Amino acid sequence: MKIDAKQFRDLDPGQRLLMGPGPSDVPARVLQAMAAPCIGHLDPYFLGVMDETQQLLRYLFQTENPFTIPVSGTGSSGMETCMVNLVEPGDEVVVCVNGVFGTRMADIVGRIGGKLIRVDAEWGRTIDPEDVRRAVQGHRPKVLAVVHAETSTGACQPLEELATIAREAGALFLVDTVTSLGGMEVEVDRLGIDAVYSGTQKCLSCPPGLSPISFSAAAMEALQSRKTPVVSWYLDMGLVGSYWGSERKYHHTAPVNMNYALREAVRIIAEEGLEARFARHRLNHRALVAGVEAMGLKMVVAEHERLPMLNTIQIPDGADDKRVRAALLNEFGIEIGAGLGQFAGKAWRVGLMGHSCRRKNVLLFLGALETILKAEGVAVGPGALEAAAAVYE
Amino acid sequence: MKIDAKQFRDLDPGQRLLMGPGPSDVPARVLQAMAAPCIGHLDPYFLGVMDETQQLLRYLFQTENPFTIPVSGTGSSGMETCMVNLVEPGDEVVVCVNGVFGTRMADIVGRIGGKLIRVDAEWGRTIDPEDVRRAVQGHRPKVLAVVHAETSTGACQPLEELATIAREAGALFLVDTVTSLGGMEVEVDRLGIDAVYSGTQKCLSCPPGLSPISFSAAAMEALQSRKTPVVSWYLDMGLVGSYWGSERKYHHTAPVNMNYALREAVRIIAEEGLEARFARHRLNHRALVAGVEAMGLKMVVAEHERLPMLNTIQIPDGADDKRVRAALLNEFGIEIGAGLGQFAGKAWRVGLMGHSCRRKNVLLFLGALETILKAEGVAVGPGALEAAAAVYE
Repeated sequence: MKIDAKQFRDLDPGQRLLMGPGPSDVPARVLQAMAAPCIGHLDPYFLGVMDETQQLLRYLFQTENPFTIPVSGTGSSGMETCMVNLVEPGDEVVVCVNGVFGTRMADIVGRIGGKLIRVDAEWGRTIDPEDVRRAVQGHRPKVLAVVHAETSTGACQPLEELATIAREAGALFLVDTVTSLGGMEVEVDRLGIDAVYSGTQKCLSCPPGLSPISFSAAAMEALQSRKTPVVSWYLDMGLVGSYWGSERKYHHTAPVNMNYALREAVRIIAEEGLEARFARHRLNHRALVAGVEAMGLKMVVAEHERLPMLNTIQIPDGADDKRVRAALLNEFGIEIGAGLGQFAGKAWRVGLMGHSCRRKNVLLFLGALETILKAEGVAVGPGALEAAAAVYE
Repeated sequence: MKIDAKQFRDLDPGQRLLMGPGPSDVPARVLQAMAAPCIGHLDPYFLGVMDETQQLLRYLFQTENPFTIPVSGTGSSGMETCMVNLVEPGDEVVVCVNGVFGTRMADIVGRIGGKLIRVDAEWGRTIDPEDVRRAVQGHRPKVLAVVHAETSTGACQPLEELATIAREAGALFLVDTVTSLGGMEVEVDRLGIDAVYSGTQKCLSCPPGLSPISFSAAAMEALQSRKTPVVSWYLDMGLVGSYWGSERKYHHTAPVNMNYALREAVRIIAEEGLEARFARHRLNHRALVAGVEAMGLKMVVAEHERLPMLNTIQIPDGADDKRVRAALLNEFGIEIGAGLGQFAGKAWRVGLMGHSCRRKNVLLFLGALETILKAEGVAVGPGALEAAAAVYE
């Protein structure tokens, strides 16, 4: 079996403006770090990179948890990691579902033999803590799991009350922060979160490929006192912990260059500071919404439940979903996300994540969308750019 | 919780010569490709990258299998992927064990509820097909699994007879080619291999982070006719296949830049050609062995069972394992591997993989080792460099 190597051209992806649900734009410094020479996964220098990455991730998660590492897979592998390490067959698990990612957590619980207690809310809304309280009554769940930032809907879940419910029920509190981490407060220790995972390609503005996670002492205790082995060898945090801990015992070959990139991405965040970064996300979000609403378009999520970094916009009557997104991509180089699940064809998902979250991008997006919608014959109100600009004054 | 960003210096891993069990040296072209701008995992350009990567991987595996993709994790995730997709609880699985990686496969079978039928051979030797034939008798195994290139010992497993045994037993033939792929013949279709996985950081000379796999029609049939769900959501190839196939259905966010790197690494292989590449590995291996034996050192594996790309050398009396490896790394910038498992402290593992597999590296390694051993007071024979050089004439 032969192949003609010449048929494969030099890689040239061009330069997109990534304003979808992730990946977000990656700063040149992160790409450069990722392209540094690959060295061994047990090289003393790389062990130092690992230590520093752990420190930086603890800062990001606002935690003192020793077990704070990047899992060698994308954000979804972090979700699976938390579930397979903390849940044993027969364990009751409460999963809050108000979008694609809660649905996915529930799916995983079923695969690994957990007993699912599902609490639903309407897509685009948040979970009502009273519903969770009721669902927990008479049960002794091992884990209570919720998505902080539902990337499929743009809803922002308040965590305080759910943390209390989990604590009172004696359950481990598991939180998906794939889209929130690095873009808004994720206070693991203050809230009493026991297990948390994220992804690199959202508000960290690092390419996809790793999943930062952190386990509390209680989560580590649950892992260590399991009666059955973790069903996944690759994601068995008991084994992986022996590599990231002081033993430095080989488990799998760490994705060396991806770890370079993550370290640099979080170093950039530390330079900006979490407070400033969160304020920047809030500001650009407000400007985007002001512009969108000036055009007469509607946000899917009510104001008090909105995420700053993931903005769902109802597709207006008369606009062709695919044609508008294709025009954004092909004429303006802007990627936004399609609706997912229930929202397919009904909403656009506009990301303002990490490095992509800047004033010039907000204005460019609004200008491009207005131009395209007008060309499509959709009636749009005037003054979108002015409304957005006013927010920055 | 604050952090001082200034405490984290600019990344500077320096330049090692990677002659361990992987990662191997990564060509500049691959690093450059990896640092290209990140784009969306559903961007039309990236979908083209995916298609081309699949074509290149089929060439590498010498297969027409449509389902040939990189799994979004390291080589070990590929091992887990094959097992969790093909094995259901209660299925009998024959695993050949003659090193760390066979042991790992057996471990995974146990975790997912397979019935393990284990065939052992001494470490450093190959599996005797007669032992497998006997083990299979009276059983109806779902899978027969073996490691082609045992990275922990340097033994090269002949596959033809085992393929026949698997076929006759009605079992799927599963082969670990993590270390062999791209450095020696891996003929998936000709041998009738049903499931195969590899890693990027060995003879492909791409950073670690992805695991190329391929499933035959029979393996796909086994996956599609499962009675139980795949225990891993992240590694469920039914779902992942909907993203890599024509549906392009979102499953998880592909590690975009790692996929750029893999495409470039295999493009480089296609330019060299498999035959030329395999010949280069054999040649440098012979030169290395000639030099090592001239020094009076002994190879762990008998000549007819040796891998070309992973050379295990018995640590000579009087040599301090750690001190010699530290001197290679610190004085010459050369990384070699420590012994693993039974061979810890007893063997060195010298990789000649992909981009690292070159004449200048063989000579440099031999010169450095001779220098260090003499400084350690270990008696070494003369003429190592000459013996190696003679192989190239």
